[in-house]
Amino acid sequence: MNNNNIERELEELRYRIDVLDDRLVSLLAERKKLVEEVMQLKKKYHLPVYHPAREENLISRRRQQGSDEGFDPDFIEELFRLILRQSRVSQSRQLSRKAVKPGAGVLLVGGSGEMGRYFHHWFRDAGYRVSVLERHDWDRVESLCRNIDLVLVGVPIEKTEEVIRNLGPCLPPEALLADITSIKEAPLQAMLEAHQGPVVGLHPLFGPGTSTMDKQIIVTTPGRMPEKSQWLIEQLNAWGAITVTADAREHDEIMTYVQALRHFATFGFGRFLYQQQVDIFKSLEFSSPIYRLELGMVGRLFAQDPGLYAEIIFATPERRKLLKSYIASLTEQLDLLDKADKEEFTREFDRIAAWFGTFGDQAMRESSYLIDKLIERF
Amino acid sequence: MNNNNIERELEELRYRIDVLDDRLVSLLAERKKLVEEVMQLKKKYHLPVYHPAREENLISRRRQQGSDEGFDPDFIEELFRLILRQSRVSQSRQLSRKAVKPGAGVLLVGGSGEMGRYFHHWFRDAGYRVSVLERHDWDRVESLCRNIDLVLVGVPIEKTEEVIRNLGPCLPPEALLADITSIKEAPLQAMLEAHQGPVVGLHPLFGPGTSTMDKQIIVTTPGRMPEKSQWLIEQLNAWGAITVTADAREHDEIMTYVQALRHFATFGFGRFLYQQQVDIFKSLEFSSPIYRLELGMVGRLFAQDPGLYAEIIFATPERRKLLKSYIASLTEQLDLLDKADKEEFTREFDRIAAWFGTFGDQAMRESSYLIDKLIERF
Repeated sequence: MNNNNIERELEELRYRIDVLDDRLVSLLAERKKLVEEVMQLKKKYHLPVYHPAREENLISRRRQQGSDEGFDPDFIEELFRLILRQSRVSQSRQLSRKAVKPGAGVLLVGGSGEMGRYFHHWFRDAGYRVSVLERHDWDRVESLCRNIDLVLVGVPIEKTEEVIRNLGPCLPPEALLADITSIKEAPLQAMLEAHQGPVVGLHPLFGPGTSTMDKQIIVTTPGRMPEKSQWLIEQLNAWGAITVTADAREHDEIMTYVQALRHFATFGFGRFLYQQQVDIFKSLEFSSPIYRLELGMVGRLFAQDPGLYAEIIFATPERRKLLKSYIASLTEQLDLLDKADKEEFTREFDRIAAWFGTFGDQAMRESSYLIDKLIERF
Repeated sequence: MNNNNIERELEELRYRIDVLDDRLVSLLAERKKLVEEVMQLKKKYHLPVYHPAREENLISRRRQQGSDEGFDPDFIEELFRLILRQSRVSQSRQLSRKAVKPGAGVLLVGGSGEMGRYFHHWFRDAGYRVSVLERHDWDRVESLCRNIDLVLVGVPIEKTEEVIRNLGPCLPPEALLADITSIKEAPLQAMLEAHQGPVVGLHPLFGPGTSTMDKQIIVTTPGRMPEKSQWLIEQLNAWGAITVTADAREHDEIMTYVQALRHFATFGFGRFLYQQQVDIFKSLEFSSPIYRLELGMVGRLFAQDPGLYAEIIFATPERRKLLKSYIASLTEQLDLLDKADKEEFTREFDRIAAWFGTFGDQAMRESSYLIDKLIERF
């Protein structure tokens, strides 16, 4: 076959593939219409959007069919998870416009901060009456608090307790008082002291850059009269968030590791790269996807608001003490480096690996999946 | 409408969705057949698998169609990237069975190590004559080296130079000598001294757990007679790997950061979690996807071979010195913690953020994409 003929044959095959792809997208559009009908029904009869058993059932049938047709079933699963998520997100987006407590009054204290504006947008779009109390609004605090059903405090950690104390006397007794501070014990205590009505602590574990709340986690720490905060929890769930209840002290302890230690370690790593003037882009040329992923985590931190990180890292004296222990723990390893003691390194490695236990396998599986995603996309 | 009727209507809609999904998978199977025809043609006429312009063209047409049908075009792009990648991987897998230098003899020195076995499998499947030289095979080294076209050295760093020196006198003068050590300067020098024929250094930036070489990076450091190593580079490319040429010294410098510093920092972080006996699974319950991702990187390290990491971390005295500077750099921050000096933290943060420059935005974009993937899947 000469070059022209090969090219013509290739063109013919490509044309047939294009026709097929066109049909694929049309089918997806038909699918979307059916899903919208399902959504209208669910909306009308207040049924939940997400139906895990239905999803798993759908996935396993498609895996089976995919396998029969000679596909890697993981590929088919991934494809359908993508389709299902897209339809879930668009369903949530439409349902989210419906308020659980329509017309209720929401006062955002510190509402022009980044997280404040985030929640402002969600509450407003769902049809709540939203107002904002900022530093310069304290002279009209009484009028702002009138007829309010929910007061949500989102101010810097070091001001939280004081703001709560000042708010207390102005609140309607029935109003729900809540905060979104990243530590929970002290603010919750302050809210219980300042207000006699219902109280709940919230910690949204995501930043203001998150476009959807789908499957994002919000920790709730119960304060008083939980039945009176139920509507708020339901509203957050309706927006797609997963709420996890925790004791305030337990929450703060875990967050020391989940947030403070981790951010501090990332900060210290980025700072060292800067001190050494490492050529970041050059290093990316020579890098495995996993390095790209890890360096991405460092770059991500420095692309965000330093104030947010300063708050988290320096929140309490206990936190700062723990971070010092972290530095001390690294210092213990100077000796290992001096002696180039590979044997001791390996023994210590094995002890830690044994302690991580089954998490190691899970981490391998999840991170391998993400590395594939990274390769696929960039 | 009563509950039974709602349920019946939902069932009817779900049935129609299932029928549609069945057609979707059938269409994909038809698509696969067409792609296989394309591949047969390409294989027969030695055309490249990957055709970037064709892919981008296909993607932008589907984005347009998706948009017209009311979809988020990013969703449609993602879907088609997934489909295209799957077909590219399966094409590469079939093409990889074809050797660039059919029947050539490959001797893997240290072939029963993890990376050795990895390459053994690839060379053998492509139809090369593969043999292995292990520690106990030195009495028959002469016969093993006879009629060999490529000798690939993959032994622990501290033995690499000695092994190369011992091999030298036994090699056919025309044989290509290469290594896969994670440092390059010293081994390359040793190869050039031990052998008068063609020499090239390789550093595959991935572990033996990587199922496909698709888009994985292999650094090549030229030694002598590059035209004689061209077939090997082409073979690695045919398997899907991207080869990046670098000077051996430059490679080693960058790897100090890309590998040694990063692994050491991750090791130190995991070690501290172990010392503090942090409840990993509890912490995951309360965690944002990004924490899950970062902790996953730590878990991933400890799920792998400590020997590999010990090698990388302790490779050279310069590396160990740099790691000590890293600890010293963290120690500088004790003062900041003692004084809870948020202002200085913020100033330092801003300096580093400015230095990271545009990488920050790129990192945000990439990591946000991966976080979405993580939410979707787990």
